Amino acid sequence: MDVHGNPYRSIRLSQDDRQVEIIDQTRLPHEFVVVRLSTLDQAVEAICDMQVRGAPLIGATAAYGFCLGLLENAEDKSLRVIADTLIRCRPTAVNLRWAVQRMLTVLLPLSPSERVAAAYEEAAAICEEDVAANKDIGKHGGGLLREIWEKKGKSAPVNILTHCNAGWLATVDWGTALAPVFRAHMDSIPVHVWVDETRPRNQGAHLTAWELVSAGIDHHLIVDNAGGHLMQHGQVDICIVGTDRTAASGDVCNKIGTYLKALAAFDNQVPFYVALPGSTIDWQVSDGVGEIPIEERAPDEVLQVQGLHERQLVQVGIAPANTPAANPAFDVTPARLVTGLITERGICSASRAGLLSLYPEKG
Amino acid sequence: MDVHGNPYRSIRLSQDDRQVEIIDQTRLPHEFVVVRLSTLDQAVEAICDMQVRGAPLIGATAAYGFCLGLLENAEDKSLRVIADTLIRCRPTAVNLRWAVQRMLTVLLPLSPSERVAAAYEEAAAICEEDVAANKDIGKHGGGLLREIWEKKGKSAPVNILTHCNAGWLATVDWGTALAPVFRAHMDSIPVHVWVDETRPRNQGAHLTAWELVSAGIDHHLIVDNAGGHLMQHGQVDICIVGTDRTAASGDVCNKIGTYLKALAAFDNQVPFYVALPGSTIDWQVSDGVGEIPIEERAPDEVLQVQGLHERQLVQVGIAPANTPAANPAFDVTPARLVTGLITERGICSASRAGLLSLYPEKG
Repeated sequence: MDVHGNPYRSIRLSQDDRQVEIIDQTRLPHEFVVVRLSTLDQAVEAICDMQVRGAPLIGATAAYGFCLGLLENAEDKSLRVIADTLIRCRPTAVNLRWAVQRMLTVLLPLSPSERVAAAYEEAAAICEEDVAANKDIGKHGGGLLREIWEKKGKSAPVNILTHCNAGWLATVDWGTALAPVFRAHMDSIPVHVWVDETRPRNQGAHLTAWELVSAGIDHHLIVDNAGGHLMQHGQVDICIVGTDRTAASGDVCNKIGTYLKALAAFDNQVPFYVALPGSTIDWQVSDGVGEIPIEERAPDEVLQVQGLHERQLVQVGIAPANTPAANPAFDVTPARLVTGLITERGICSASRAGLLSLYPEKG
Repeated sequence: MDVHGNPYRSIRLSQDDRQVEIIDQTRLPHEFVVVRLSTLDQAVEAICDMQVRGAPLIGATAAYGFCLGLLENAEDKSLRVIADTLIRCRPTAVNLRWAVQRMLTVLLPLSPSERVAAAYEEAAAICEEDVAANKDIGKHGGGLLREIWEKKGKSAPVNILTHCNAGWLATVDWGTALAPVFRAHMDSIPVHVWVDETRPRNQGAHLTAWELVSAGIDHHLIVDNAGGHLMQHGQVDICIVGTDRTAASGDVCNKIGTYLKALAAFDNQVPFYVALPGSTIDWQVSDGVGEIPIEERAPDEVLQVQGLHERQLVQVGIAPANTPAANPAFDVTPARLVTGLITERGICSASRAGLLSLYPEKG
């Protein structure tokens, strides 16, 4: 997508075709900074510190991190070390494991001398497939928005509520939950987005709002508490969120707070959709609430808020000195609350049967 | 309650028996500052700027604001001006209107020369009644906590989730939702409180956490997004919140986001209680969602966060420069999601019949 009129992706190779360039997402929306990764450690750090985040982008960064690791050592033993180092970064996002597994499958049969070239090729393929998948998610989800617009007599914008950032910054390009919004906007369907700020890290305020401002799409920032009230009063036509891991049963693990919005949508008959590429589905998990590990992140993310003060990016403390905090980073929305899953292959019900209708090869 | 070992109330007369002292709640938990109000305008400002907040404390401040207004002019015409000026401050809290109405009822029949003394007497009565009511709420709600503790075999603390601040700072003393927690703690029942930070103004992080630290009560601060996940995983035994206005039907208007927690409690069979003094009941309203006006506050409360940076209280911007925000301050939780109402007269179901069983004089 465009930034100041220049087309960008959230990750790309630098001109030497070896190093990897990412956007430091911890500094948005206040500073737009491109960071160059030269080593596996730097890639791991970028994932852990959330300079990159979003399940698909974590997968893509892990793939390129694998390449950088191989530049240091491409022996068999090294492959396992690289894989383990990457997988440890973030326990919830399934794309990380998926991308690392895919790299291993391609690289293990090759001789060490062939591995670097093959790894870069595979990482590039992962990125291209992600862009294509998200573009298709945009097409299918955009159809939903068009239907709502037509049902409203084309008289008013379609009001979409989203949580966290599942825009192009969370993927390689296009995004998942925001792809339908970008698609609709390009097709001249009027849209308005309610952006959950998404505490503790405020990816909604920092990233989703920034993407929408950059694209010239109408939106309002709201606190995470506000969505239920808006739905009670008919101000939300549809919710669309992303996901870090989708259980084969259709349970959806996404940023903490998603479950609360799904409950409110269900209570007010507002359609609640989850947008995801197939790589986000964990076919091994059938009980999302019971089985998906939920990352507990540092209490400081709750106790502190980052923002701009006198043109400086600073952290401010919001709690008394002796108050401890708990910080579960994700929650699981049971399939019964999900109207449908928007995938690159089409839209299906949030159920094993629904998913298998689109991915029959997993049956 | 005690602050640094000294007993405090959130509002009291200063030594001259004329001016009124409040705690500037916008500066907590970082600074404890007592502010003196000498005029009606200062009282109005304290309410509008939320130096005082919480339905019962707003009522008490309005009563004393009335007194300060009478010091300037106690003629009949002045009474109406004072009343209108106060009622305009905050549209949602019913106690404001209730307190002003009560002052008018007492003062209108009197001659101007009698009014100042009678007004101070009535304001003091409102405060004393509030303290007594909240103490009784603590007794009744404390009983609930004791039951849960006994049901758990006295083996683990009772986990209470609360939203916003309905502690002693929201009332004259004791609090509403926190009164049962203080009561249980005094009675040596082990309690642990999950404190919703409560964006946008973070009354949970600023005030509830501060009250609990001051009282030595175990707690964790969480983001507003986290409660549903905790309830899914059995980490919440009971939710208790306050209310700014309770419809005669049992619908409850409280700080934005309360409805989402009630939905999660209902979905996970966690008891959801609302604590309130009778003065918070609006006997005229039967449909809370449709009838209660919801205050829309300034977008800056969403776009900015207040906190401590290098020992200075500062505001930081969290959104892109061109992002607008919407800021509804309250929402309504339908009675069907509320397990019970804890009042000064006992606990009842959230329904007209339940309320009338405790307040038969309103039938």
